[in-house]
Amino acid sequence: MTAKKSLETFLSMVKEIHDLGCAEELLAWDQQTFMPPKGAEARASQMAVLAGVRHDRLAGDRMAELLAALDESEKGGLDPDARVNVREVRRLHERARKVPAELVRELAKLQSLGQNAWVRARKESDFPSFAPWLEKILAVKRRIADAIGYEGSRYDAFLDEFEPGATTAEIASLFGELKKALVPFAGRILEAARLASIEPIRGTYPIPEQEKLARRLARMIGYDFEAGRIDVSAHPFTTGYLHDVRFTNRYDENDLTVGIFGALHEGGHALYQQGFDPAHEGTPRGDWVSLGIHESQSRLWENMVGRSRAFWEHALPLLKESFPDAAGLTLDAWHRNVNRVEASLIRVEADEVTYNLHILLRFEIEVDLVEGRIEVADLPAIWNEKMRASLGIEPPDDARGVLQDIHWSAGLLGYFPTYTLGNLYAAQLYRAAARAIPDLEGCLRRGEFGSLLDWLRRTIHRRGRTYRAGELVRVVTGEPLRPSYFMDYLEEKYGALYPE
Amino acid sequence: MTAKKSLETFLSMVKEIHDLGCAEELLAWDQQTFMPPKGAEARASQMAVLAGVRHDRLAGDRMAELLAALDESEKGGLDPDARVNVREVRRLHERARKVPAELVRELAKLQSLGQNAWVRARKESDFPSFAPWLEKILAVKRRIADAIGYEGSRYDAFLDEFEPGATTAEIASLFGELKKALVPFAGRILEAARLASIEPIRGTYPIPEQEKLARRLARMIGYDFEAGRIDVSAHPFTTGYLHDVRFTNRYDENDLTVGIFGALHEGGHALYQQGFDPAHEGTPRGDWVSLGIHESQSRLWENMVGRSRAFWEHALPLLKESFPDAAGLTLDAWHRNVNRVEASLIRVEADEVTYNLHILLRFEIEVDLVEGRIEVADLPAIWNEKMRASLGIEPPDDARGVLQDIHWSAGLLGYFPTYTLGNLYAAQLYRAAARAIPDLEGCLRRGEFGSLLDWLRRTIHRRGRTYRAGELVRVVTGEPLRPSYFMDYLEEKYGALYPE
Repeated sequence: MTAKKSLETFLSMVKEIHDLGCAEELLAWDQQTFMPPKGAEARASQMAVLAGVRHDRLAGDRMAELLAALDESEKGGLDPDARVNVREVRRLHERARKVPAELVRELAKLQSLGQNAWVRARKESDFPSFAPWLEKILAVKRRIADAIGYEGSRYDAFLDEFEPGATTAEIASLFGELKKALVPFAGRILEAARLASIEPIRGTYPIPEQEKLARRLARMIGYDFEAGRIDVSAHPFTTGYLHDVRFTNRYDENDLTVGIFGALHEGGHALYQQGFDPAHEGTPRGDWVSLGIHESQSRLWENMVGRSRAFWEHALPLLKESFPDAAGLTLDAWHRNVNRVEASLIRVEADEVTYNLHILLRFEIEVDLVEGRIEVADLPAIWNEKMRASLGIEPPDDARGVLQDIHWSAGLLGYFPTYTLGNLYAAQLYRAAARAIPDLEGCLRRGEFGSLLDWLRRTIHRRGRTYRAGELVRVVTGEPLRPSYFMDYLEEKYGALYPE
Repeated sequence: MTAKKSLETFLSMVKEIHDLGCAEELLAWDQQTFMPPKGAEARASQMAVLAGVRHDRLAGDRMAELLAALDESEKGGLDPDARVNVREVRRLHERARKVPAELVRELAKLQSLGQNAWVRARKESDFPSFAPWLEKILAVKRRIADAIGYEGSRYDAFLDEFEPGATTAEIASLFGELKKALVPFAGRILEAARLASIEPIRGTYPIPEQEKLARRLARMIGYDFEAGRIDVSAHPFTTGYLHDVRFTNRYDENDLTVGIFGALHEGGHALYQQGFDPAHEGTPRGDWVSLGIHESQSRLWENMVGRSRAFWEHALPLLKESFPDAAGLTLDAWHRNVNRVEASLIRVEADEVTYNLHILLRFEIEVDLVEGRIEVADLPAIWNEKMRASLGIEPPDDARGVLQDIHWSAGLLGYFPTYTLGNLYAAQLYRAAARAIPDLEGCLRRGEFGSLLDWLRRTIHRRGRTYRAGELVRVVTGEPLRPSYFMDYLEEKYGALYPE
């Protein structure tokens, strides 16, 4: 087979694997939105079959032969886009081939049973009933990490699944730097917020009107409804690809911020997915880089844009049009409301100042667990002690402590740090955008988001997986990732909201 | 491999193929209901990949080896259910293996392009622009039929896809018998209807209320909303399996019958799909027999039940609860309205008396086309002449004539006769139900549908594919399929509505 023919066959296989992945995603989307309750068991079976077919194609001998015939190094004669595709598929292929099918099946089973056990345990706030499952999941995940291999920490093998190329040492160093600045800063702001005691704004806001507002905001920032839709689910998420990118949202009849920031967060993810280069549809060259970069896109729109005063100069009048209960709101009061800071127990409800403290705690625990420095049985005590140390509060029960997140029960070790990476990337990227776009703040004030979206399309979205996350940030901003941009952002904004 | 082990492996492969089919169906459902417009191209690609995987598993060597090790004859040592499964999968496997992959791909491409051409041609009422596509589709379908093989007519190979075991000769004889009785009867009723000139009942009926009524009627006849849902699409259809069976419906703000009989028709299909024996989930033993039997279930609920006077004794008050515009309706007027007879051009809008005349015409044309007795170019003239002969009216243009149905453009030759088979089966089955169930009419009058549904579950649904359609009817009713039951039904009902 000629090199040209090998590349063509390779790309057509890659696109088929991509199509199978899209089918799986649609089944998962339907499961969370419209599937009737009795369909759950059959759906799990359908998804397992699809995942198996996809795995076989990615890890199979046909793909191995094609990859053997392709060389992504500079001397391999491939064009730059093809080199990206071969490099990325080779990475996934090798990873998939290294893990024995028996371990994949064992993990899939434990994930399903583990999540059921977690749901029950959280409901009863009964950590000991969940502990044996976590032990088993950890044991299998450790074997998987060993099969994949790693150089530094075993945790590297987990990180690599979500943030390719990142290492535990690197992240520990970044997070250490962040922690050093964030802990004292958060302490100061929390104390100031306690003294200011700003009550959250509540009222009665009919859900259909909230849905309309969410659509309006999503459209305003550039989300294309011809290539997507918004539905409702218990936990908002974004799914789909390029010409069909959907997200879900949730609403609280008494609190507008739930639906608004859900829409801006998921809308940010969705803009990334809608923004890939169609010339590379269905290949890594036209796909997202890492969970950290994905999260940077959601956080940039949710926080840097959506919680700014400039944004609400334009958007508050829209909100007032929809809700009589919001008629008397002032811009200052609303801006303070969407930036309330408070030490709280639950990560997903945390504000921008304290959010990363929740993640740092999880990262430290995960690394210690995986490296064997702590035992599963000791997790609740360690969790509670770290909460006291970093946020000054202690969970009254494990449901609101160590059991609050689904990730570990689903085998998702190495996932949490990508949330904080996303926040750090977002701040650094947004600063670069502000340098590149004349009067970015003025744009937000006038409700003009096109120049920001164009900049993101050009610098991030259309580049697909050309660069790894760290490289991409360097290419776009001229510097490696630095936590100082995020701290600068926090200090400027919250320093003004809570002056010393 | 032991026989037991072969059977186990076989069944697990069969269930995987079934799961892949369910995934494809969900993608198709989403395409018709919720998919954003720009998603169409990628969806077609996803569905083609899934269909390819499914075909490979069904037709592949692994399945061939398993089938070689299994013997569904009486001496093969398999239990009766396993024998059904082996017999039915062998049939599909052999059919799939006989058709070269190149022909499958060519047909898939022609179906897609042919449907586009048909949409344009119907819009412009321009048959000549569609004719070359139909020629090409016919040519490929003929080659497929030759690859599959047949004993009598080449048309048998097409029929077998939708009504396994049926032959052209058998259907021609049945339809000939039907035609002999139906043509004069329809002529008489049409004349009486013309003289009676009953105007259709129209008003303003808000769609959300119509949706509620559709749900209420579906629930009333036994449809399980925990295992299904109703959405809206341009052309109503039923999809899914056992624990997740969805259907779609459409509504006309000025005509209640569209939404009501859509719900009862699709509801009938859905009751069949929800009614298979869960012990045989994902295998032919727990699946539908043929399109004709499927249609019998929809027609039985739509027509025998849903257009009966007894049904509306119970249901008319429900309808009046929902619609002020229906307040003055009498039972007689409504019953006449839902059984209006009129010679009309469009099959899908035809009443019970004239509907099968539309199908007989299509069947005759299809057989002549496939057997080479008529040319594509002559279709409009032949169509119009047959319309004049059987219904006494002639289409003013081809859009309302030979171009009205999508089937031929989608390569669905041999499909149309199953509609009339469905009507014939429905009448004969309903007669058997009326013999088996004490006071069936009284049940309808009281809105009690459980005994009818139980009877259908027991005699049809739970038997899955144990019998071929013809056999099933014989087992359930004690006789082969006879058009006289359908004619008796028409004569009794319409004879009373339009007395001589």
